[in-house]
Amino acid sequence: MSSCRAESNPDVAAAPSASSASSAAATVHKPNVSFCQSCGGPTKLAVPEGEEKMRAVCTLCGRIFYENPKMVVGCLVEHDAKVLLCKRNIQPSYGLWTLPAGFLEMGESAAEGAMRETLEEACAEVEVLSPFAQLDIPRIGQSYIIFRAKLKAPHFSPGPESLECALFSLDDIPFDSLAFSSIYVTLKMYSEDIKLGKLNFHYATINKRQGASPSDPRGFSVENHYKT
Amino acid sequence: MSSCRAESNPDVAAAPSASSASSAAATVHKPNVSFCQSCGGPTKLAVPEGEEKMRAVCTLCGRIFYENPKMVVGCLVEHDAKVLLCKRNIQPSYGLWTLPAGFLEMGESAAEGAMRETLEEACAEVEVLSPFAQLDIPRIGQSYIIFRAKLKAPHFSPGPESLECALFSLDDIPFDSLAFSSIYVTLKMYSEDIKLGKLNFHYATINKRQGASPSDPRGFSVENHYKT
Repeated sequence: MSSCRAESNPDVAAAPSASSASSAAATVHKPNVSFCQSCGGPTKLAVPEGEEKMRAVCTLCGRIFYENPKMVVGCLVEHDAKVLLCKRNIQPSYGLWTLPAGFLEMGESAAEGAMRETLEEACAEVEVLSPFAQLDIPRIGQSYIIFRAKLKAPHFSPGPESLECALFSLDDIPFDSLAFSSIYVTLKMYSEDIKLGKLNFHYATINKRQGASPSDPRGFSVENHYKT
Repeated sequence: MSSCRAESNPDVAAAPSASSASSAAATVHKPNVSFCQSCGGPTKLAVPEGEEKMRAVCTLCGRIFYENPKMVVGCLVEHDAKVLLCKRNIQPSYGLWTLPAGFLEMGESAAEGAMRETLEEACAEVEVLSPFAQLDIPRIGQSYIIFRAKLKAPHFSPGPESLECALFSLDDIPFDSLAFSSIYVTLKMYSEDIKLGKLNFHYATINKRQGASPSDPRGFSVENHYKT
């Protein structure tokens, strides 16, 4: 039930970081914690001793707040040379197609989270076959972890977050109606692998243009793409 | 400078979850947010509408707090058929050997974070060669992402978090003095790949025994290991 937050939480400022100017995607993260979650005291921004980055620090109890990127986990479900897509029933990207995916929860592995999201969004019980891609999106603090999977039984139907679920042959994937850059890139890499007859594991960075919508196929570039 | 938190933040309760009893590592995550970080109001535990999990919810402004696993990123640096290890100068696992690794920060990709940690802990400038492993540790809410890398120049020296940095041939890796289960598993997988003459990408789950120390080689099991 957590996929509604996917690609929708860009709590990062846009100015390039002096300390990591080598990356076009480099951003300065502005801590967004006004009060201490332990004691309720007001926080201030400070660079803690022995550290280099600005953090929110509690002015009463001294607790330091770290914010870190989140993992979005999902399945690329294969069935009869087709892949399973879900049409989103929620914002962002309402009405556009996606792979079943959402935020990894505490206490589960990425593969378990990907299977859970597939059950929630497509009512499909699946078995993970292999890791397929890790796609980092530094501008919005997300990392997509996508697994190849297969249906345990040939059944699926839309969960509460989906309007519709359907199998698409690779030639019919609606590349102009996909919900997120990460899904576009995943399906392009997968189609290419299938055409070339060899499935790889892919790692890459998606550099989103500032202000681009999550679904804009011209709103990002792919960098540092490694295949193994 | 964030690696001091590695494998040291087990904010999860120990009771098995009824809804995910299939995993030996399954845990119930107890939200640990007493006050709202936006308005400072007290929180209560509740299952928000449309969700299934208990979250901390602000009793004043209604904000919901999500807690998610963190990514720990690091490099397996290869040089002259040896690998670069760092002896920890900080707790946990003070005095034990590790790969340079630490928490991924906002605004950077996993590969950038892994190179940054290597610079901080081993004063070594490296180039990432390929993704090598993703090792999830559900019990402590961490996912290790390890890249193969090479030195840009043959220079390294201990950073503030390291007592010593050294290159080890595979036969000399101190498997009885490694800092973390994730590092033990990574180096075992790497040694095996090198012996067999084929480097793979590995995905696996590390199920830690409750209460086991981070460095105990008998304190965990490896499950759902996929190679690609």
